[in-house]
Amino acid sequence: MKENKKHDFESNEEISKRVYQIISDLTHQIENMHPPTFNTKIRGQSNVIFDEKEGLLELGDKQTRRSFLNLGQARKFMQTSLILNRCYEYLQRNKTASIREIYYELKHAIANTKENTFDAQEESNEVIVDVEHSVNSIREKLNLQAEPKGALYGNIVLKDMMHDQNEFNCSNLGRGGWSIMSRIEPEEIKIESVDADFLLVVETSAMYNRLIEERYPKKNKAILISTGGQAARGTRRLIHRLHYEQNLPVVVFTDGDPYGWYIYSVIKRGSMALAAHSKFLCVPEAKYVGMRLKDVDTYGLKEVTEPLKEGDIKRAKEMLAYPWFQSDGWQAELKSALTRKIRIEQQALANKSLEFVAEKYLPEKIDNEDFLS
Amino acid sequence: MKENKKHDFESNEEISKRVYQIISDLTHQIENMHPPTFNTKIRGQSNVIFDEKEGLLELGDKQTRRSFLNLGQARKFMQTSLILNRCYEYLQRNKTASIREIYYELKHAIANTKENTFDAQEESNEVIVDVEHSVNSIREKLNLQAEPKGALYGNIVLKDMMHDQNEFNCSNLGRGGWSIMSRIEPEEIKIESVDADFLLVVETSAMYNRLIEERYPKKNKAILISTGGQAARGTRRLIHRLHYEQNLPVVVFTDGDPYGWYIYSVIKRGSMALAAHSKFLCVPEAKYVGMRLKDVDTYGLKEVTEPLKEGDIKRAKEMLAYPWFQSDGWQAELKSALTRKIRIEQQALANKSLEFVAEKYLPEKIDNEDFLS
Repeated sequence: MKENKKHDFESNEEISKRVYQIISDLTHQIENMHPPTFNTKIRGQSNVIFDEKEGLLELGDKQTRRSFLNLGQARKFMQTSLILNRCYEYLQRNKTASIREIYYELKHAIANTKENTFDAQEESNEVIVDVEHSVNSIREKLNLQAEPKGALYGNIVLKDMMHDQNEFNCSNLGRGGWSIMSRIEPEEIKIESVDADFLLVVETSAMYNRLIEERYPKKNKAILISTGGQAARGTRRLIHRLHYEQNLPVVVFTDGDPYGWYIYSVIKRGSMALAAHSKFLCVPEAKYVGMRLKDVDTYGLKEVTEPLKEGDIKRAKEMLAYPWFQSDGWQAELKSALTRKIRIEQQALANKSLEFVAEKYLPEKIDNEDFLS
Repeated sequence: MKENKKHDFESNEEISKRVYQIISDLTHQIENMHPPTFNTKIRGQSNVIFDEKEGLLELGDKQTRRSFLNLGQARKFMQTSLILNRCYEYLQRNKTASIREIYYELKHAIANTKENTFDAQEESNEVIVDVEHSVNSIREKLNLQAEPKGALYGNIVLKDMMHDQNEFNCSNLGRGGWSIMSRIEPEEIKIESVDADFLLVVETSAMYNRLIEERYPKKNKAILISTGGQAARGTRRLIHRLHYEQNLPVVVFTDGDPYGWYIYSVIKRGSMALAAHSKFLCVPEAKYVGMRLKDVDTYGLKEVTEPLKEGDIKRAKEMLAYPWFQSDGWQAELKSALTRKIRIEQQALANKSLEFVAEKYLPEKIDNEDFLS
């Protein structure tokens, strides 16, 4: 059994306390006539490191200090105080808000002036990331949420603690399954029980539908998640929790192209942009089952490949250099993509037959542990 | 009680029979040495009409004939036969497929040749529309589906007839509700019961979350649907069915801008591109509750408006000319948008307070039937 990750279960009270601490530090500084400042981490590639031991992208320790009495920082400082204050209020009142709502709530926070406190949502989004770093947590724990995306199917019972303790089995909701919420924190959505051998994460919702129609999850004791492209935060968080709380191995199934491989990489290692959040969102033990370029030959799919796009080529070249793509297997795969200049979608397997993916492709590969690593 | 729409309940057998008829007509022509042809409707604006009596956009009667022995049409003819044949097979086997899957299934349908039968999905998508028109139905009834989008919440019990007769109440699935499937035909997804006074259709999923968090559906006996932008076919089909099968009045709540108003218009009247499908997808009795430009003044939201975008201005000018936007109310609204050059999002109501929309804005407007028509 995996160890539960302690940071997963940081309570509302714990986070409130940290926010309160920052606010009261500022108040002290002001009361003592010191110029108010607070610390946050430097973002961007210059401070992103790949932690080999954990197998994760992480944000380094480089700090930066924001000062109210610096003319270039005064506006951002004011904005940060507003966001901190509002998140604290959400936590106290057990309210959640979308990042668009908090923007509108605070856009014009000072009455009797024509000056906006936030001119565009980009500004508040930026500050939210600062605050996440200052609090050393994720926005979900500050009761903020983004657009939901992704769906869950399988023999898993969830309980929504904030909504009449609703309990439901995600294999009894019809073929669509359960729509994954944007915030999926343990104190709100409890995983009551799971009966499955592994979790299969699928890139497209059409493939998810196919596998459910073919009864793949039941026949193979699998939980199924569709990301619908790049996985949203809520979906990544749920994958992380299923792995660490329920000890479910994670297998990822995407299109055979650099975009699909990067979806896998983000689930496994994290992303540059959210490096500080990897420990909340990633599963370094995730395995990659396909699509792979050798599938084109093994299964005779040459006629249903597509040419590699410009952006794919650029991305493949970048990935070749990433420290976490240095294994022989991945180097060969990426180079093969660049040489053959083709891509193969997961839905191209329909060219064999609709059932092929569920009855042959996945069972064979997963039974034989034919994973790319 | 509304009359059920007969075409909503055309059975699998009925549709199979129509497909079979077209195929056997072709076979007869060939056996009798006639050049094989089939009929489909002309698409595009030249054949779209606004039916004042029904309050719907519809496709006119202009037909076109496709002939196999016309060199310019032979390829399309071959493609149409392939799609007809495959859909017939789906119907016989009780299989569904995504429009991407049918493309891949048929992309290279003639063995031992380098020639593709379909070069790109646009080609198969085009032919699918032809086939819909020939069969006088919608692709969902041919067992084809697109990407799902949209969510449903409220005191409504659904039953998935194709999936162990799963029965579930969409107010007991946690705050996320139920993710609306791409195909939602009556013989597959049955509406078992509904306890509500009306259906509120909301543009953004963040607003949907807000209203659920505020318990709006329970307090106001409402069913809630979020479209997540322009409504997907499955979502439109469900709105249509809830109205005609369950007699639920439909109220639409979007951003106050031409894009949002067009979302409303498509739900109510249909779209140019899918004019032939309006009778399956629309609700001409739908009412529009907001956002409206007068809300900016009534509720003091001037500081949280945004400037109208270039595309909005273009769209507003087009809408001014549409026959179904000729009411005094809509003409005034569109002109006011063009004069004031502002837009107001539904989430901007958060500037009053998070609860404002659920506790004041919607209840007041809906109780007073303050609808724009």
